[in-house]
Amino acid sequence: GSHVPAKKPCVEKEVELSYAQRAKLANVHPLASRLLTIMEEKQSNLCVSADVTSSQELLQLADSLGPSICLLKTHVDILKDYAAAVSHRLQALAEKHNFLIFEDRKFADIGNTVKHQYEGGLYQISSWSHLVNAHVVPGPGVVRGLSAVGKPLGRGCLLIAQMSSQGSLASGDYTNAALQMAEGQADFVMGFICSSKISARPEFIHMTPGVQMQAGGDVLGQQYTTPEEVIFNKGTDIIIVGRGILEAPDRLEAAELYRNLGWGAYTKRLAQS
Amino acid sequence: GSHVPAKKPCVEKEVELSYAQRAKLANVHPLASRLLTIMEEKQSNLCVSADVTSSQELLQLADSLGPSICLLKTHVDILKDYAAAVSHRLQALAEKHNFLIFEDRKFADIGNTVKHQYEGGLYQISSWSHLVNAHVVPGPGVVRGLSAVGKPLGRGCLLIAQMSSQGSLASGDYTNAALQMAEGQADFVMGFICSSKISARPEFIHMTPGVQMQAGGDVLGQQYTTPEEVIFNKGTDIIIVGRGILEAPDRLEAAELYRNLGWGAYTKRLAQS
Repeated sequence: GSHVPAKKPCVEKEVELSYAQRAKLANVHPLASRLLTIMEEKQSNLCVSADVTSSQELLQLADSLGPSICLLKTHVDILKDYAAAVSHRLQALAEKHNFLIFEDRKFADIGNTVKHQYEGGLYQISSWSHLVNAHVVPGPGVVRGLSAVGKPLGRGCLLIAQMSSQGSLASGDYTNAALQMAEGQADFVMGFICSSKISARPEFIHMTPGVQMQAGGDVLGQQYTTPEEVIFNKGTDIIIVGRGILEAPDRLEAAELYRNLGWGAYTKRLAQS
Repeated sequence: GSHVPAKKPCVEKEVELSYAQRAKLANVHPLASRLLTIMEEKQSNLCVSADVTSSQELLQLADSLGPSICLLKTHVDILKDYAAAVSHRLQALAEKHNFLIFEDRKFADIGNTVKHQYEGGLYQISSWSHLVNAHVVPGPGVVRGLSAVGKPLGRGCLLIAQMSSQGSLASGDYTNAALQMAEGQADFVMGFICSSKISARPEFIHMTPGVQMQAGGDVLGQQYTTPEEVIFNKGTDIIIVGRGILEAPDRLEAAELYRNLGWGAYTKRLAQS
């Protein structure tokens, strides 16, 4: 047969920007820029999910794990003894250790209602949480409602595009709708909760929950995946780890282990790009 | 031409049961039975959405509108001055006026998290709210988590199958998934939040938000439809009215007007079946 020189396949290799480079993009959300800078400085793409029910334990966690994390994810509405002082102390710890706070409220109502839920009530989430997230099922009004409160305060929002739980309906067209909603309101939406990278725009930050050292699940449908899988294979930016750290005999040691695994997977990804 | 006798079209006419008849069905959820009985007794398929930010105003509303409603829908997390005494007094008013309480929390997280959100925190929703609702996007684990807390207490759950807001993703396959999830866990799920009747099982109660006297909308994507449209044309069971009553010059008069419109549409539907 004739000798035909092997053609290089015409696949445009996506240039992989570092967190530091992305922090400096012209159109990046200011809070995304701040988070990416923190990630680079602390060599951490670890978010700890602080699912505890005691305020004291939450604050201890924030203080002890603070140096290891870029982001602290809270569920303020499961604390049995919340008072405004808790969020004040949390903010002080976020300053001290240079991390951001992300109240995982999963807003999911019509715009007029989420406005009140974000700003008011006993928790006044908008006054202390840098980031919140929202489901996209109500349509774009949910983001408009949150943005009316959060944007003037310099806050940011993550849209839930995929979920880690078994039988989740957040896939296919639903995920695409989240993507479009984010692009339409990128002055407030700065990224996604997702299981894989869904947007090529480097301004968006992708965060993945349900991360543990070993794959598996719980009896209520949670499904776990590993840091390597999430950051290296699926191309997301931040691992969200809850029980993998909270249930470890030594939480700080576990957090450092996850920080190293997450960071290692990120540098490996950068190196091969 | 030959004379052919007109054939009766072979459409099996669905027998329309009254609320009272449905309350006595063998497989009805005990709380659905109680709600259907209340509806019949008070001739009311009106749920008021008490979207106020003051606890005192909430309690005044519950006391003054109590005689007109079958259900009071709350957003406890927008009250600026909530304390446990508020839910105690709300329960007493529900007893006094014979209505049920429905905290419109729209749970939307994985099973393990919603368990804590439903039972714990400052609001302890499961201890006072007869009904709660959940989004189905996380998959069936969200219902299993809520059921673990609520079923032993005799509580009930509504699944959000459709939403009244513009651009909502709760349609088609998503709505069908909600239906299947309800059927799979009918020992805890007693109905739907929806814009039209989606299940032929008379044990399920269909409730529709976004109801006002005149169709229209707000600037954050809410869309309104009328009691007649919802109950007579779309075949749902309960109208949920918020601003149509709260923003009326005379709230009690408005509530009575909506109660009459909703009940009239229901009796008209029964009469034509």
